[in-house]
Amino acid sequence: MTASSSLFSCSMHMEVLTPKISKWPKDFVSCHSKISYVETNYLKSTCYPISRFLCINNLSKCDKMIKTRQRDGIHCFSEGQKFQLDDVIEAQQFDRDILNAIFEIARDMENIERNSPESQILKGYLMATLFYEPSTRTRLSFESAMRRLGGEVLTTENAREFSSAAKGETLEDTIRTVEGYSDLIVLRHFESGAARRAAAIAGIPIVNAGDGPGQHPSQALLDVYTIEREIGKLDGIKVGLVGDLANGRTVRSLAYLLAKYKDVKIYFVSPEVVKMKDDIKDYLTSKGVDWEESSDLVEVASECDVVYQTRIQKERFGERLDLYEKARGKFIVNQNILNAMQRHAVIMHPLPRLDEITVDVDADPRAAYFRQAKYGLYIRMALLKLLLVGW
Amino acid sequence: MTASSSLFSCSMHMEVLTPKISKWPKDFVSCHSKISYVETNYLKSTCYPISRFLCINNLSKCDKMIKTRQRDGIHCFSEGQKFQLDDVIEAQQFDRDILNAIFEIARDMENIERNSPESQILKGYLMATLFYEPSTRTRLSFESAMRRLGGEVLTTENAREFSSAAKGETLEDTIRTVEGYSDLIVLRHFESGAARRAAAIAGIPIVNAGDGPGQHPSQALLDVYTIEREIGKLDGIKVGLVGDLANGRTVRSLAYLLAKYKDVKIYFVSPEVVKMKDDIKDYLTSKGVDWEESSDLVEVASECDVVYQTRIQKERFGERLDLYEKARGKFIVNQNILNAMQRHAVIMHPLPRLDEITVDVDADPRAAYFRQAKYGLYIRMALLKLLLVGW
Amino acid sequence: MTASSSLFSCSMHMEVLTPKISKWPKDFVSCHSKISYVETNYLKSTCYPISRFLCINNLSKCDKMIKTRQRDGIHCFSEGQKFQLDDVIEAQQFDRDILNAIFEIARDMENIERNSPESQILKGYLMATLFYEPSTRTRLSFESAMRRLGGEVLTTENAREFSSAAKGETLEDTIRTVEGYSDLIVLRHFESGAARRAAAIAGIPIVNAGDGPGQHPSQALLDVYTIEREIGKLDGIKVGLVGDLANGRTVRSLAYLLAKYKDVKIYFVSPEVVKMKDDIKDYLTSKGVDWEESSDLVEVASECDVVYQTRIQKERFGERLDLYEKARGKFIVNQNILNAMQRHAVIMHPLPRLDEITVDVDADPRAAYFRQAKYGLYIRMALLKLLLVGW
Repeated sequence: MTASSSLFSCSMHMEVLTPKISKWPKDFVSCHSKISYVETNYLKSTCYPISRFLCINNLSKCDKMIKTRQRDGIHCFSEGQKFQLDDVIEAQQFDRDILNAIFEIARDMENIERNSPESQILKGYLMATLFYEPSTRTRLSFESAMRRLGGEVLTTENAREFSSAAKGETLEDTIRTVEGYSDLIVLRHFESGAARRAAAIAGIPIVNAGDGPGQHPSQALLDVYTIEREIGKLDGIKVGLVGDLANGRTVRSLAYLLAKYKDVKIYFVSPEVVKMKDDIKDYLTSKGVDWEESSDLVEVASECDVVYQTRIQKERFGERLDLYEKARGKFIVNQNILNAMQRHAVIMHPLPRLDEITVDVDADPRAAYFRQAKYGLYIRMALLKLLLVGW
Repeated sequence: MTASSSLFSCSMHMEVLTPKISKWPKDFVSCHSKISYVETNYLKSTCYPISRFLCINNLSKCDKMIKTRQRDGIHCFSEGQKFQLDDVIEAQQFDRDILNAIFEIARDMENIERNSPESQILKGYLMATLFYEPSTRTRLSFESAMRRLGGEVLTTENAREFSSAAKGETLEDTIRTVEGYSDLIVLRHFESGAARRAAAIAGIPIVNAGDGPGQHPSQALLDVYTIEREIGKLDGIKVGLVGDLANGRTVRSLAYLLAKYKDVKIYFVSPEVVKMKDDIKDYLTSKGVDWEESSDLVEVASECDVVYQTRIQKERFGERLDLYEKARGKFIVNQNILNAMQRHAVIMHPLPRLDEITVDVDADPRAAYFRQAKYGLYIRMALLKLLLVGW
Repeated sequence: MTASSSLFSCSMHMEVLTPKISKWPKDFVSCHSKISYVETNYLKSTCYPISRFLCINNLSKCDKMIKTRQRDGIHCFSEGQKFQLDDVIEAQQFDRDILNAIFEIARDMENIERNSPESQILKGYLMATLFYEPSTRTRLSFESAMRRLGGEVLTTENAREFSSAAKGETLEDTIRTVEGYSDLIVLRHFESGAARRAAAIAGIPIVNAGDGPGQHPSQALLDVYTIEREIGKLDGIKVGLVGDLANGRTVRSLAYLLAKYKDVKIYFVSPEVVKMKDDIKDYLTSKGVDWEESSDLVEVASECDVVYQTRIQKERFGERLDLYEKARGKFIVNQNILNAMQRHAVIMHPLPRLDEITVDVDADPRAAYFRQAKYGLYIRMALLKLLLVGW
């Protein structure tokens, strides 16, 4: 939603928080999913995520709150600033603190039991999945997440019909109509930047579920979350990115997010025609991330905590199927790779996979790719919760 | 449903009303969503909408009730007569009293809060959206309406598969199957008269969500409701119908419904090739409605309470794209038109729009077309409530 | 699910049964939808469906339980044996005892009232309908069944997108992803054996909703259930199978299931080109079922309790439309057939029908085909209940 609609959004969500407000000190004002602290001498106001707030005992000084934030990785918002989770548009919007907070909520989501009160926290909320191109996997994941929290779903997989050539409605007009029917829109679009345009016009949260060659931020989040859950840490990890590094947006986003952590080492292993592009390499270098290219997958696998395999995307090769065939067989994760890998290491893959991971690998506990899909569910539950009812 | 199935419908819905019956005087019998008053001297029986009944204090005389009806615009049904909202088939089925009653309920719908008891009045009911051609906008509006009232939805957008050329099932057979799975069917069909055929066979309510070039009654209702909500009255209003008046079923239905109100003035402003047809003009004349044709949109805009713009439908021009291009640019609602309009007046549009309303108009508070889409949600909530649990 | 995942399944469902366990004698252990009786002298353990268990008073001897089973048609499972309703894959998996138990639950389903506690027994459960080819009728029936029991649904009708030629994901990988999002998968696939492959890999229940020319077991169950409900018995009935007996999988499955009952007589009435194949005839003979072929539908109709008409499937004739035209008009159920039928007999049809049953037959109370579709809803409700929460 736009900054200008922020106040409207506050009052809209106020009833959710009203019962909780009576517990706060009088000089706190609750707004959306934030708590505003009015302290005249220091800052005009400060917003804290509610759950964090509950952990803070001494509230007499705002600078104390800031210190707490710095120590615990709590993010502080000044009032009037747009709350970072009004929309989910791109991986770059998440800093390390926000990532930690999302992962903490995702962990809570893993433990929600059927028909428990927590399984109903989005009761009465309605999510629209507005998909301009089909992506059943992503759609089902979001819809499952919404339903697992008691929310309802409006589905459309043929949203192009809204803006068919014959009728020619703009995305903006469609969003302004659909926002009248729902409380949150999950948007999949074929044009890069579509989610940002939707968020600029919408008065309700927009979640980017992939916009053409652009962003797919919930996938990026679930990849990082999977590493944290499987390896137990993000600082100091070694990750091998394998396969189609030129066209795969997941590996690009993952490299970007990993740069937020300390002492990370990244290996790029790919056929020559689909090498990682210079923009990401330059970015990693600028952030002091150690990276190298390699053509020895066995060697890399023996070094890494995570082998992140990807599919060579045939559709990107056009008529040069000879190049595709040459590229696809080059780096396969199979028993040889498993044998080289350390016991604690894992294999990840954004799915779908063809034969770049052989089926006999599936039974190995280090094959984490189906668990990775499941972690995606928890990440999406966490995002929906944050966007609709806040911390 | 058919008249003959009316008794079945009564007993089917009896459980909804049973708890309420104990409060009524003994000589009242509740049936479907009506209350029957048995008065031997005057009429065999009379049915009143329940909410109306609650407002009536002196029930000793039936003629008093009739008077009350006449004063308050309450509609009276004799027992055995088919209740007007067993199905929603065409705009013509609604008289002024029924429209008022629907609008009153729609107003209640605007104020339903999340997770309030009112948001659950259709809990346990199942609506099937049976769409033989896609219309995502209409489908989402109905599905949102159902969910906002706690009901559940079965969706199909490829209902043609039911009656594919290869298999050749009749609409009647499909309806008899789907009515076994649901409590209400929202039908979109490509053939004029399909909804009426469905209603004739079905034992559950049918809502026409557009049947080919025929009717789209919920759109007609929401247009009238928008005028009432935005202007505050319907008697005495001046409405300019602009654009494709030959092919647009919305403007035709709207003209028809406006004829039910007093002292209405209608202006037709359209390119020559898509002029309003004589049947509607003759109908308006026969009902004493004042109308005129004009080619001066600025002049009309300065006179009207409502400027109802429509899209020139390219698909109706076939290969004569030259005619289409000539027609589409002729009457555009832009800043010039806004400048001419009165402060209280509004611009409406059934959406989607192309460039017949310029985007810079959107920010003006008189641009009512996105609010109009939202009013459609409330109208559909009201219709679903009336059809499933009654007044 | 696989046998090896059976224990996991037990613990997964344990919370459903835990509240009930306190009522059982201490030497009973509840597992999934079964009760295990630990009796050291006789069998290591025995599992009983819970509702059956409640009817048994004397529990001191395990051999007494076995006798009870034999008398009442209760099925007994030894622990470690895969419970028959972990998945629904093919008609052959159901023996007469299981059929009786399913039908008993289906009867209960017919009487569930709106918003009663029974209408919420699947609350918190999520069913995915994964359809690789559209079958709106079957999909709506399953989705209605799930919602009528308070469960939620994830829908996909374009599941081929998961495994498009371009991407090439295997069914097994898709299933392992979707099982992360849901509690049960209803699978429609174009390849025979697909459901069995899915069940072999899945850790959640799989329901076969048709796999190509293969099985469609819920249709077979609803056909038998319809006969029992309409005629009141299955032993001793006479059934005429009419129409396309070569290609119709419903008549083949029905013949197979009828062979489980005593003194059944089956008549085959079909055009020469679509005669019942020898495999079914041989099977019936081997089971001692009396069958004969006839070309006199009037004569057969006068003898039978059930006339089961089917559509001649045009799509099976390829370019030989002359043969199709010749076949389709040969055996029509019309007023002549009705006149020959006994008063208690019924006409069934799996739908959709073309003109193989004339429309004027619909009004006769013996026309059971739309009731048959409704019985399908109750059968599917029963299956979903059994698969998710057990007896």
